[in-house]
Amino acid sequence: MRIDIISVIPEMLESPLGCSILKRAQDKGLAELHVHNLRDYTTNKHRKVDDYPFGGDAGMVIQIEPVDRCISALKAQRDYDEVIFTAPDGEILSQKMANGLSMLNNIIILCGHYKGIDYRIREHLITKEISVGDYVLTGGELPAAIIADAIVRLIPGAIGDEQSALSDSFQDNLLEPPVYTRPADYKGWKVPEILLSGHEAKIDAWKHEMALARTKALRPDLLL
Amino acid sequence: MRIDIISVIPEMLESPLGCSILKRAQDKGLAELHVHNLRDYTTNKHRKVDDYPFGGDAGMVIQIEPVDRCISALKAQRDYDEVIFTAPDGEILSQKMANGLSMLNNIIILCGHYKGIDYRIREHLITKEISVGDYVLTGGELPAAIIADAIVRLIPGAIGDEQSALSDSFQDNLLEPPVYTRPADYKGWKVPEILLSGHEAKIDAWKHEMALARTKALRPDLLL
Repeated sequence: MRIDIISVIPEMLESPLGCSILKRAQDKGLAELHVHNLRDYTTNKHRKVDDYPFGGDAGMVIQIEPVDRCISALKAQRDYDEVIFTAPDGEILSQKMANGLSMLNNIIILCGHYKGIDYRIREHLITKEISVGDYVLTGGELPAAIIADAIVRLIPGAIGDEQSALSDSFQDNLLEPPVYTRPADYKGWKVPEILLSGHEAKIDAWKHEMALARTKALRPDLLL
Repeated sequence: MRIDIISVIPEMLESPLGCSILKRAQDKGLAELHVHNLRDYTTNKHRKVDDYPFGGDAGMVIQIEPVDRCISALKAQRDYDEVIFTAPDGEILSQKMANGLSMLNNIIILCGHYKGIDYRIREHLITKEISVGDYVLTGGELPAAIIADAIVRLIPGAIGDEQSALSDSFQDNLLEPPVYTRPADYKGWKVPEILLSGHEAKIDAWKHEMALARTKALRPDLLL
């Protein structure tokens, strides 16, 4: 899978894309991540890619021309399954959506930028708008990194332990049961005895019961 | 405001915390961001901070001891308003929650880590669990960066243009109206004429109408 990210702050993506699972997936050849500086695609001699909005709003707006030039340059090299824009009013990212996106071959993610982008970009060049949640951020760089992380870790081989990805929260609409590790007693705070019993069937039943109880208490919406 | 982030992959946070608004807010003295390597707080000679879970799950679990030592060391230096844990089953981050958090003085954010942390940490040391959305990520570093970004940009002075933060999506429960900038005609794709009319009252009415129409179409839940 190949992900091309277009940003006006490409340096913000350096460490998120260069660490942990995203680094390992690239090293193993499972994913290719490329970050493109939008300023490389403007004809403006000051490398300016934004301008004042029509109609007198506050804030600057990303212009359509450099975005169109960048996306066109990428599309000339290969076909893309989706051209995604990170927007606070896009469709909310879910594990189901991440599962679907992880099956694609090539995607572009255009990072939204405070205070917005020319709406014609969204109407004519974007195929999918994704929000990572109902809150406002400085730009779309962190959301782009979140989308890349959520997708790439689902590619078979990206995580060492396949079993572990399968039991993640949300994959079965249940939150995970509590987990514990050594020491069994820390300052008097003890691990539930059942987990130390070695009785596999009883432990599994307890885990399921706890997962269900936590989901009912914290996220009953997941059970509907 | 001071934010202390505890992580096992501190290098992943370097560029998100060192760019854009978060950098500017730190340069202006509006926010202090500190990242702590959890491995600096273990007594294990191999700097190991995780261990196998009790009860035979897949994946490794962060141990309580280094976390307790790190949080205790921070608390010995100052009072904290919240000790936050980034968890997929925490309370979902919203703009309202970000507004509230931006008023605090000192917070700790403990980054969750694939495959989880000893549940006793959550029961005894954490005061607030926050999820940035219903999807699974490699770790809590990107969520911690998201929380920091959402909060710090709300501190007065962090964003150059105050007016602009006020008109953000979600601050008034309406999505933003479309925005446009030059050129007025790009390859035949035109800016709505009203925005070029110079008639301020009509433009404002149009913007409100469009904000309402987009909210009704895309996020009717915000209007309830």
